[in-house]
Amino acid sequence: MAARPKLHYPNGRGRMESVRWVLAAAGVEGYRKAVLIQTPSEGSWISHKKEFRFDEEFLETKEQLHKLQDGNHLLFQQVPMVEIDGMKLVQTRSILHYIADKHNLFGKDLKERTLIDMYVEGTLDLLELLIMHPFLKPDDQQKEVVNMAQKAIIRYFPVFEKILRGHGQNFLVGNQLSLADVILLQTILALEEKIPNILSAFPFLQEYTVKLSNIPTIKRFLEPGSKKKPPPDEIYVRTVYNIFKP
Amino acid sequence: MAARPKLHYPNGRGRMESVRWVLAAAGVEGYRKAVLIQTPSEGSWISHKKEFRFDEEFLETKEQLHKLQDGNHLLFQQVPMVEIDGMKLVQTRSILHYIADKHNLFGKDLKERTLIDMYVEGTLDLLELLIMHPFLKPDDQQKEVVNMAQKAIIRYFPVFEKILRGHGQNFLVGNQLSLADVILLQTILALEEKIPNILSAFPFLQEYTVKLSNIPTIKRFLEPGSKKKPPPDEIYVRTVYNIFKP
Repeated sequence: MAARPKLHYPNGRGRMESVRWVLAAAGVEGYRKAVLIQTPSEGSWISHKKEFRFDEEFLETKEQLHKLQDGNHLLFQQVPMVEIDGMKLVQTRSILHYIADKHNLFGKDLKERTLIDMYVEGTLDLLELLIMHPFLKPDDQQKEVVNMAQKAIIRYFPVFEKILRGHGQNFLVGNQLSLADVILLQTILALEEKIPNILSAFPFLQEYTVKLSNIPTIKRFLEPGSKKKPPPDEIYVRTVYNIFKP
Repeated sequence: MAARPKLHYPNGRGRMESVRWVLAAAGVEGYRKAVLIQTPSEGSWISHKKEFRFDEEFLETKEQLHKLQDGNHLLFQQVPMVEIDGMKLVQTRSILHYIADKHNLFGKDLKERTLIDMYVEGTLDLLELLIMHPFLKPDDQQKEVVNMAQKAIIRYFPVFEKILRGHGQNFLVGNQLSLADVILLQTILALEEKIPNILSAFPFLQEYTVKLSNIPTIKRFLEPGSKKKPPPDEIYVRTVYNIFKP
């Protein structure tokens, strides 16, 4: 049996949360399947719960980061890092791409792949604003919420609303779940935490959000007790500063 | 015959220069192949020069950008945008990935692809510093050169030096040219313009740079008259401000 993926990052969202989302959506986390196994001795069938999971090693101190760096575990000295399939993957996008490729979340041909890639890149630009937000000065944080709302409403959401309205399907590309849907759903839900009515002018995105949230693997990830991280708080911000400040 | 790719960007490096590099390395620009064609009427053979090229539409004014935006030619209202194979591609990484996929610059399997992806992402982080450099305040520019040199020498170049020393091949991944080599060569040469001795401690990278520069498609791109853009100057910086400042 392949070892479970292991994620190395502080205990918070940051750049790793997309990785948690994609692993969860792909069924790598929280997926339990009851399989019947015939026991050799008795010839009878028993129900066996198969579990796919990932583990997390939370960085809490600068020393832990240095240990990873000194042990040559981080290609470019940085986290996120994910141990998976015998590799130590770094760079958020590369990690997302690998998991998406492995779990058929990257389209059925190069044209679909390219659409997914573009939608992911656009959405990551928006998500980056959310990732950086807790590290702004308090005075700048409220201004930045306005900026994020504008970017979402003017630049990004109209694109996805139009796509969904245009083809009438449940997913952005190829009528099946892809990396683009996962990252967009993550971004929408995180924005809604700050700006509850952010989707008010986008009926197709509202319906899309509800439908995606009810996909079993995603639904479990949205329930309490999953590996989904809460919104960044003061402790997370302080931890990140302690680990990464020179 | 498929239409030539058309690049939409200001007349300078910025985020489009990597796209020009990859198109050139892939032989889409400047590649001439003498092919023999039999003329139907006379039954004789003539030599025909086949040319693969791309075109550029340089943005010079805010009005040109607005025209592209208003015509729905830019998915997220931004350039770089590349018209290619009937698509209007945006997002630098997505454009690079598509061209790399199309021209076999993305490895032979998922493992090679993932290595290439990681190396590209790391190198793009370094390249981003170079892209932003001309837009810093004059006082900050010299400090940033020191920062870039440190990042290159401490974080990025040792990784690539070790890979090349380790396998003794001419390319980073799979013993053939990939997107990772093209972006790394672009970044090394651009850094050398600012810091001529940047590779002095990296003999394998020095040799690698020379060998890559002599690949015919790349060699032509490095010669005068190619579509390679010069280092950013005041005119480029002013043009970019005029087009993109709100």
